[in-house]
Amino acid sequence: MSVLVVGSIALDTVKTPVEEHADLLGGSASYAAVGASFFSPVKLVGIVGEDFPNEHIAYLKGRNIDLGGLQQVPGKTFRWSGEYMWDMNTRETRSVELNVFEHFTPTLPSAYVESPVVLLANIAPSLQSHVLDQMSRPQFVIADTMDLWINIARGDLEALLQRVDMLILNDSEARQFTQETSLIKAGAKIRTMGPKYVAIKKGEHGCLLFGDGEFFSCGAYPLEDIHDPTGAGDTFAGGLAGYLAARGNGSIGFSQLRHAVVFGSVLASFNVEAFSLERLRSLTQMDIEARYQAFHKMSQFEVLG
Amino acid sequence: MSVLVVGSIALDTVKTPVEEHADLLGGSASYAAVGASFFSPVKLVGIVGEDFPNEHIAYLKGRNIDLGGLQQVPGKTFRWSGEYMWDMNTRETRSVELNVFEHFTPTLPSAYVESPVVLLANIAPSLQSHVLDQMSRPQFVIADTMDLWINIARGDLEALLQRVDMLILNDSEARQFTQETSLIKAGAKIRTMGPKYVAIKKGEHGCLLFGDGEFFSCGAYPLEDIHDPTGAGDTFAGGLAGYLAARGNGSIGFSQLRHAVVFGSVLASFNVEAFSLERLRSLTQMDIEARYQAFHKMSQFEVLG
Repeated sequence: MSVLVVGSIALDTVKTPVEEHADLLGGSASYAAVGASFFSPVKLVGIVGEDFPNEHIAYLKGRNIDLGGLQQVPGKTFRWSGEYMWDMNTRETRSVELNVFEHFTPTLPSAYVESPVVLLANIAPSLQSHVLDQMSRPQFVIADTMDLWINIARGDLEALLQRVDMLILNDSEARQFTQETSLIKAGAKIRTMGPKYVAIKKGEHGCLLFGDGEFFSCGAYPLEDIHDPTGAGDTFAGGLAGYLAARGNGSIGFSQLRHAVVFGSVLASFNVEAFSLERLRSLTQMDIEARYQAFHKMSQFEVLG
Repeated sequence: MSVLVVGSIALDTVKTPVEEHADLLGGSASYAAVGASFFSPVKLVGIVGEDFPNEHIAYLKGRNIDLGGLQQVPGKTFRWSGEYMWDMNTRETRSVELNVFEHFTPTLPSAYVESPVVLLANIAPSLQSHVLDQMSRPQFVIADTMDLWINIARGDLEALLQRVDMLILNDSEARQFTQETSLIKAGAKIRTMGPKYVAIKKGEHGCLLFGDGEFFSCGAYPLEDIHDPTGAGDTFAGGLAGYLAARGNGSIGFSQLRHAVVFGSVLASFNVEAFSLERLRSLTQMDIEARYQAFHKMSQFEVLG
């Protein structure tokens, strides 16, 4: 099965205490689509300007990503610039130029309408809902979000939650959204707002997955060096969605989501090892499989009799 | 086998955003000894004053803790007072009265000298070394430490590290001690300083265990409500040491330590559910077993073919 990914496509300028690089391929949909493409075919919906480099188009096509839903329009591509502090966890946005993204309306080609798995990567919740308006009964809908929408579009976000199977957000966003300091309470509370499943990302500390009376705590693959955390969450969501789509037409339940979360974490762990999508460019299925095995080995323990 | 525990015994006053309680049983050795006592017999070395309540003595004896190494001397018991901020993670020490603890010299009764497993709970590293001076070749020595000793007694701590099998410390202490921001690098660096094994505690995010080419990442059991984090690390160390001692005379390797870390985490998760040692007072073997199973269920995933 294929996965439909909608979100932002950007040209990023990223500074860390060690390096700075400009005009990198970025945006939530770029990371998510490439992440998903390691597991299943992808259909991408997004917008770029005339300045968007052909090499990025060629790269996405080469990843088996269908660009029938990519709008290329007059004007400049969305640009984002950010800087990471010495701990590589704190990030400051230096500038945002929405450009063509400001008037983006996601429009689905007819071939996209029946996509079984949908990943609504981080964009305004009204646009995420607009994508669902155009679809016929997708099997599994995942939405990612961020603090900005919790602050300025809470109503839209709450409306969206009635229509998605799974919400992904990070720990501070979950606390902000629910006003609960306990993540366990926050996850349970969000489930009462619509989504059957909730994934709370804790960055370098892993991820918590909540279902109906079920719970999974997944660590993060530990890394010696992190070169660029940008897009880790989007890559996680993409890997997770792609893994689910690859399961075929079987039902998607907690057991499948458990593995999807692990594969998403594995992909995200690779992504932060280099700037932009660079590490994903050279990544192989064997790399993913080896890290999954290593991750398993370092985090498992037996039931004792 | 029994475990020898040496450390501080205190009367604590603890304030949280919700509650405040005075004159609670506390100190690194109290938590560690009670934690260990769920798995094996314990021999305790410590000091208290004339004001130390008989009920605490009776409680420790009732836990199968040998108090032959407990000195009760003229003067007042060590007192500590601290306050937790709203997030229950940030702690401010309000007052410290060393009292009889100021001139404590740990002295081992002859029956203690051959203890196979030793837990040097958090006290000055020179005192930890002094305990080892009195012993004949223990099988496995674990030391806990804190930021204070890294700051004011680094030389003593480095000397101690040559003599211990395992060091336990928390994430900020590991970073401070090694000047490495990556915990993976920090753990590896501490291993080059002496201990064959290092456990880095990450509070609510679990624990990392480092061995010779081996690594284990253990989550923390997720809790909805934390009432008092005091002693969580000491209880973890105690549970870990007690579990190892209970394994009998077999060799202690990475596989045993992996399970010891999980049992230590389980015990610590109970400890923070109430003030002081209150939750441990009512804790049963069945509670521990049930949480171990639940912890296993929520953190495991299979190797996929």
